[in-house]
Amino acid sequence: MAHEGAHMTEESECMIGRDVGKKQGSVHESCGNVKEMRAVVLSGFGGLNKLRVTKKPMPECKPGEVKIRVKTCGLNFLDLMVRQGTIDCPPRAPLVPGFECCGIVESVGETTKGFEIGDRVMAFVNYNAWAEVVCAPEEFVYKMPDEMTFAEAAAFALNFVAAYMMLFELANLREGMSVLVHSAGGAVGQAVAQLCSTLPNVTVFGLASSFKHAAIKDSVTHLFDRNADYIHEVKKISPEGVDIVLDCLCGENTGKGLSLLKPLGTYILYGASNMVTGETKSFFSFAKSWWQVEKVNPIKLYEENKVMAGFSLLNLLFKQGRSRLVKLVMDKLLCLYDQKKIKPVVDSLWALEEVKEAMQRIHDRGNIGKLILDVEKSPTPLMASDSTETSEAGEEEEEPEGDNDNKERMPFIH
Amino acid sequence: MAHEGAHMTEESECMIGRDVGKKQGSVHESCGNVKEMRAVVLSGFGGLNKLRVTKKPMPECKPGEVKIRVKTCGLNFLDLMVRQGTIDCPPRAPLVPGFECCGIVESVGETTKGFEIGDRVMAFVNYNAWAEVVCAPEEFVYKMPDEMTFAEAAAFALNFVAAYMMLFELANLREGMSVLVHSAGGAVGQAVAQLCSTLPNVTVFGLASSFKHAAIKDSVTHLFDRNADYIHEVKKISPEGVDIVLDCLCGENTGKGLSLLKPLGTYILYGASNMVTGETKSFFSFAKSWWQVEKVNPIKLYEENKVMAGFSLLNLLFKQGRSRLVKLVMDKLLCLYDQKKIKPVVDSLWALEEVKEAMQRIHDRGNIGKLILDVEKSPTPLMASDSTETSEAGEEEEEPEGDNDNKERMPFIH
Repeated sequence: MAHEGAHMTEESECMIGRDVGKKQGSVHESCGNVKEMRAVVLSGFGGLNKLRVTKKPMPECKPGEVKIRVKTCGLNFLDLMVRQGTIDCPPRAPLVPGFECCGIVESVGETTKGFEIGDRVMAFVNYNAWAEVVCAPEEFVYKMPDEMTFAEAAAFALNFVAAYMMLFELANLREGMSVLVHSAGGAVGQAVAQLCSTLPNVTVFGLASSFKHAAIKDSVTHLFDRNADYIHEVKKISPEGVDIVLDCLCGENTGKGLSLLKPLGTYILYGASNMVTGETKSFFSFAKSWWQVEKVNPIKLYEENKVMAGFSLLNLLFKQGRSRLVKLVMDKLLCLYDQKKIKPVVDSLWALEEVKEAMQRIHDRGNIGKLILDVEKSPTPLMASDSTETSEAGEEEEEPEGDNDNKERMPFIH
Repeated sequence: MAHEGAHMTEESECMIGRDVGKKQGSVHESCGNVKEMRAVVLSGFGGLNKLRVTKKPMPECKPGEVKIRVKTCGLNFLDLMVRQGTIDCPPRAPLVPGFECCGIVESVGETTKGFEIGDRVMAFVNYNAWAEVVCAPEEFVYKMPDEMTFAEAAAFALNFVAAYMMLFELANLREGMSVLVHSAGGAVGQAVAQLCSTLPNVTVFGLASSFKHAAIKDSVTHLFDRNADYIHEVKKISPEGVDIVLDCLCGENTGKGLSLLKPLGTYILYGASNMVTGETKSFFSFAKSWWQVEKVNPIKLYEENKVMAGFSLLNLLFKQGRSRLVKLVMDKLLCLYDQKKIKPVVDSLWALEEVKEAMQRIHDRGNIGKLILDVEKSPTPLMASDSTETSEAGEEEEEPEGDNDNKERMPFIH
């Protein structure tokens, strides 16, 4: 394994070097002086071929930070958008993706309080999560309950906090209300369904691909195929509509979602995954998507007594400084977890080296619950017929031909 | 008084007759057979000259309705917009304006439950409030507490219900939050300030004309002139902004209001009084206002973690069937009233015949608290220098000349 890692590092750093030019030299220099770790690196924005596992200098713990020996990382749809560069103000590549990780505290910074070496923790980070070691400011780190596994923890933090804040902070979910959630089979969708079940008599309408229905039918009240005319289906059951619509797709769904709201209902946009179609997406198609999203006249909301909200947990944490509020929410969630009222749903665990396959799976919306990168896992040898090798090709429209060659599509491990 | 009333009726019905053509005959016929009552009638959309007090057939109580001998009626900014026709889907004129009234139950319909003759009540109605007798469906009628006066009741229902629902149903006001309210001196503004004071440590930023500051300074935490650069002033005190913005002006204030929100903050549009400038406003300038309102991209809300809401209590009641919810809110408010935590602020009482002067006062934003039509009040003889005769003329821009002649501006009572 160590040998394989070293081999891969050379190959991938070489490839990254072609992209970043001058930076290559400094990376090599630093490798001699500092400890190294494995990390997933995105060499530039684009297709799966931009992802590699490589060695990077291990970060040092600054004052106020917690150094975590990572066990598991969450993989979110947003990571796919980061890879494609279809997010607002993307950082410079190369970068280490990932916004959440879990592991064991290896050391703490000088002024860091509340954590000790050996603590089992989960953390939000502003990139750099997909690595063997992560340093995170203490304000974004939370202790794990004893009975929570690292896989559960990686499926817990981001999705449950987001679901909780949308339902209870923004939309004021109460007994007897109804909720429509897109991507009911996804990790946020499953968190939403579980949190709704903590209140009496909440009706959950879920949209999901038909092949997931058998697996998730017990988690929601009504389940529809994601390609169905869900407006019609929901209104057949609830002619007045629903109290809360949670939309991670954006696009034409905004208008539909608003139209489905009861008076005083709340539509929350918490993602824009419709901006992702093929493997890559140019900045211009991103900008086009932005402008094509239907804008809303406040007077329409006034006349219809409706609420439109947006929610981005990462912006809340890293741009808007709301870590204290998130900590309070996390405390409430851990309490619900202890009471066994909620339990994260894990879809699958993947080695760092399998990040492409994992990302392909979330792209294809094949997951039920959370996709997790397990840092200690060895890659599973791929079968020749593995679906992840071909499924994305069918959706390609804008992909440059060079990205489509078989070499780039091969599983990472030789 | 009776003589005066009859005299006026002839004059005004004659004027209405010119507007409605064929209807005149049937009104005259019915007058002979049914009981009559005094009512304010809007003969067509436009300036103050469209308002008259006239006699109308007294309504009969249908099943499920409550017939109220009216004592007081609330006058709201929306009534001004109705007069001008600057509302969505205005009804046909002639009509009797007014959306709320208080009085004593004179009879109840066949199937009506929960009310008895002699009950002191307040009611919401979908027009027709400004009359001596009003019939309202029981779902929109609420019993008054014994210690509440009819003037207080007319200042209570619409404004406190609206303020409560915005703060607690839509925005989820909690301890320690901050609220910005436009028109802090108005009836809704004063209700907002009082409701905010029922929670610990809520900061209220109010905007009001300077001449009101002395009178209302104790009701809010910080008071600014309505023409001040309030964004700048608020940010000097609270650099992060506020949690809730309540805007009844619309127009450019929407963008400003959103920019002033903290993350997870809520902007609520509950009126569009900027659509009213001069005495009259054409439909086209209304439509122009609608289109000039800055539309909001949901993705912006997503990135900034913000909530945009609209609130129209009348639509909620009369178009969207939420009378049961409003009843629950009214119960909570009456509880707060009983506990002496809230108390409606009455600006002034006006005879029905003084409706023009009252409306002029709300147009000029001269009121502190609620303007009330007192059905039993005799008109106060006007002084030659009364400000209501001239104040609006200064703002006239689009008024057709014919509307500006002195005859129409004279106080109604001879």
